[in-house]
Amino acid sequence: MSTKEHFKLLKTDSGARAGELTTAHGKVATPVFLPVGSQATVKTLTPTEIRDTGFDMVLANTYHLYLRPGIDVIQELGGLHRFMAWAGAILTDSGGYQVFSLAPLCKIDDAGVTFRSHIDGSQHFFTPELAVSYQEALGADVMMVLDECTAYGDSEAKVRRAMHRTHQWAARCLNARKRDDLALYAIVQGGFSPEMRRESADYLTGLDFPGYAIGGLSVGEPKAVTLPVIETVTAGLPEGKPRYLMGVGAPEDIIEGVARGIDIFDCALPTRVARNGALYTRRGRVNIRRAEYRQRDAPLDSECDCYTCRTFSAAYLSHLFRSDELLALRLATLHNLRFIARLMGEIRSAILDGTFGTYRKDFLAGYKTTDEVTRVAQKGKWLKGREG
Amino acid sequence: MSTKEHFKLLKTDSGARAGELTTAHGKVATPVFLPVGSQATVKTLTPTEIRDTGFDMVLANTYHLYLRPGIDVIQELGGLHRFMAWAGAILTDSGGYQVFSLAPLCKIDDAGVTFRSHIDGSQHFFTPELAVSYQEALGADVMMVLDECTAYGDSEAKVRRAMHRTHQWAARCLNARKRDDLALYAIVQGGFSPEMRRESADYLTGLDFPGYAIGGLSVGEPKAVTLPVIETVTAGLPEGKPRYLMGVGAPEDIIEGVARGIDIFDCALPTRVARNGALYTRRGRVNIRRAEYRQRDAPLDSECDCYTCRTFSAAYLSHLFRSDELLALRLATLHNLRFIARLMGEIRSAILDGTFGTYRKDFLAGYKTTDEVTRVAQKGKWLKGREG
Repeated sequence: MSTKEHFKLLKTDSGARAGELTTAHGKVATPVFLPVGSQATVKTLTPTEIRDTGFDMVLANTYHLYLRPGIDVIQELGGLHRFMAWAGAILTDSGGYQVFSLAPLCKIDDAGVTFRSHIDGSQHFFTPELAVSYQEALGADVMMVLDECTAYGDSEAKVRRAMHRTHQWAARCLNARKRDDLALYAIVQGGFSPEMRRESADYLTGLDFPGYAIGGLSVGEPKAVTLPVIETVTAGLPEGKPRYLMGVGAPEDIIEGVARGIDIFDCALPTRVARNGALYTRRGRVNIRRAEYRQRDAPLDSECDCYTCRTFSAAYLSHLFRSDELLALRLATLHNLRFIARLMGEIRSAILDGTFGTYRKDFLAGYKTTDEVTRVAQKGKWLKGREG
Repeated sequence: MSTKEHFKLLKTDSGARAGELTTAHGKVATPVFLPVGSQATVKTLTPTEIRDTGFDMVLANTYHLYLRPGIDVIQELGGLHRFMAWAGAILTDSGGYQVFSLAPLCKIDDAGVTFRSHIDGSQHFFTPELAVSYQEALGADVMMVLDECTAYGDSEAKVRRAMHRTHQWAARCLNARKRDDLALYAIVQGGFSPEMRRESADYLTGLDFPGYAIGGLSVGEPKAVTLPVIETVTAGLPEGKPRYLMGVGAPEDIIEGVARGIDIFDCALPTRVARNGALYTRRGRVNIRRAEYRQRDAPLDSECDCYTCRTFSAAYLSHLFRSDELLALRLATLHNLRFIARLMGEIRSAILDGTFGTYRKDFLAGYKTTDEVTRVAQKGKWLKGREG
């Protein structure tokens, strides 16, 4: 299978798009959210549960898998799908973002990036060519180019240098490909400057990748800054290729991303906050540890059809969290992922029906978002000690 | 349903017995092993998984549930079965053992036991009557009397005093019962003295309980000391009542207990060691963290039919443990419990076929047990900081 037919755009509704990805591991309806399984496991869940919860594609991470168990180990065991017993599609991040955010002593030049392992301090070297060869060895259905990430607040000169390097590396990744059954996506950089974002989208569109990602967002900046960048980039990308907003997001951010033409999302947020007892409902995120749930003889969310809400009372879930029981983490993860899966399904139906505008308005009117101060503080805390 | 028909002895084979418990929550084939769910959850697993792994009965703990979430909370939520969504049978320990081993500042007199919570230091008072009323409120299919436990090495005088108090408390528990649909088991004490064990079995048999447990074993003593005590006690108990060996065990201990007439076992060991990466095979316990499993492209145990072994390679399981992934704990727990479930099924078939002697010999010949020094050291370590 070549990646020529990788994406089909089925319907647009204002800026929102409904489409379909075709991979060697099945078709994936878009807009889609990818649960994060950096270390070849979506934390706490089996592959059967991930599929039953409503997902056909997950994300794994080249940086993590390269360090442990090793790309060679997974290759010898028949590739990543077989290793983690996941028959659906897999997108792997190249590891660029993780090298910059997790690895101590990261040094970059035009050749590539030298870094130390966050696990044992050993030294390693990634190049664009190696990033592609690792992802081909893993057998990822969608691979990402190696890029250079910048942070919120970096100087224009630094952002520009990183963008140019990202462009050179994208071209090198394209040249390094050996398998045309796996799709390689480019990553648009350019920080928070509309001019640079337009330049980056233009340049990469010229290289004709089967898909385009937006990198360097959701890195601690206020939301008011994020959304215009997304608009700028999607306006500069070809209609017929999928757009992937990396590291986003929260339910309200997914809705706003879809409204601006995004097709693919991934984020550790729904699973990470689940393990802290923060659970999604249509009215917003609630904390199961609050006293009000201690004796509540009803599901956490009576509108939810997940295993947790079908089987247990909020009181039982509250008990598991208060007792530091491991089952709590599973049940909360199942709930939050099911919430996101239903959200994506509803978004897609609304787009196909031409009612996405109404759906978006109704959802956002009912959903109380985490306030900006809390959100930025949480993100900052997370960037310091996160799961990757 | 009255408890008159609580147990049916179907077949004996040398000392081993095959039988059946009847409860309001289904029949339970014996010999049976009860997975431990002290806090109303068998760590990491859903009720569906527990049942699918081959278990019809689990153990929960009155001490833990009394402290958190509170007996009243569970009662208001419709009892323990509904609270934890477990439709099978439940045996609750009275909390006697946990008060003595977990609670700081435990003070005992003939009236009952005063203790502080290991969670928040608050002071509490248990009596035999309260222990029964709590277990009736939980709705346990099998309840245990409140007993006084002694340790390995306690003086004869102390053991005798505790035994006599256990006998008085057993009679008080029997009088305190309000529900005759729930079976109340007595607990034989008497330390490591054959005379006292015989006296205790005699006295309690005279009170005519629907079942009898052996307490005060597996508390750090060498195995050579344990087995004769079991023989002494079962010889003194009525044939037509079930015998429950509390806190045992390891596969080899279950086999030896069955050979001495035990019908019911419970132990946190299979689930606890699973979470440390120690997994059962027919050749003995193996540690999945060992280097030999890192690249093994085969199930951990190719003879095993558990979800873990049917789905994943030993290499993947090894990766999850090395990466501190939560899924590791689930997969290992499923494996060890499935191993025990199959062991119990095979033991019962062998008894019904009259071939238990051969089965026992073959199993023990193939199964390398953890050496005594390691075992006693592990137990000591565990007694200091355990799950209950």
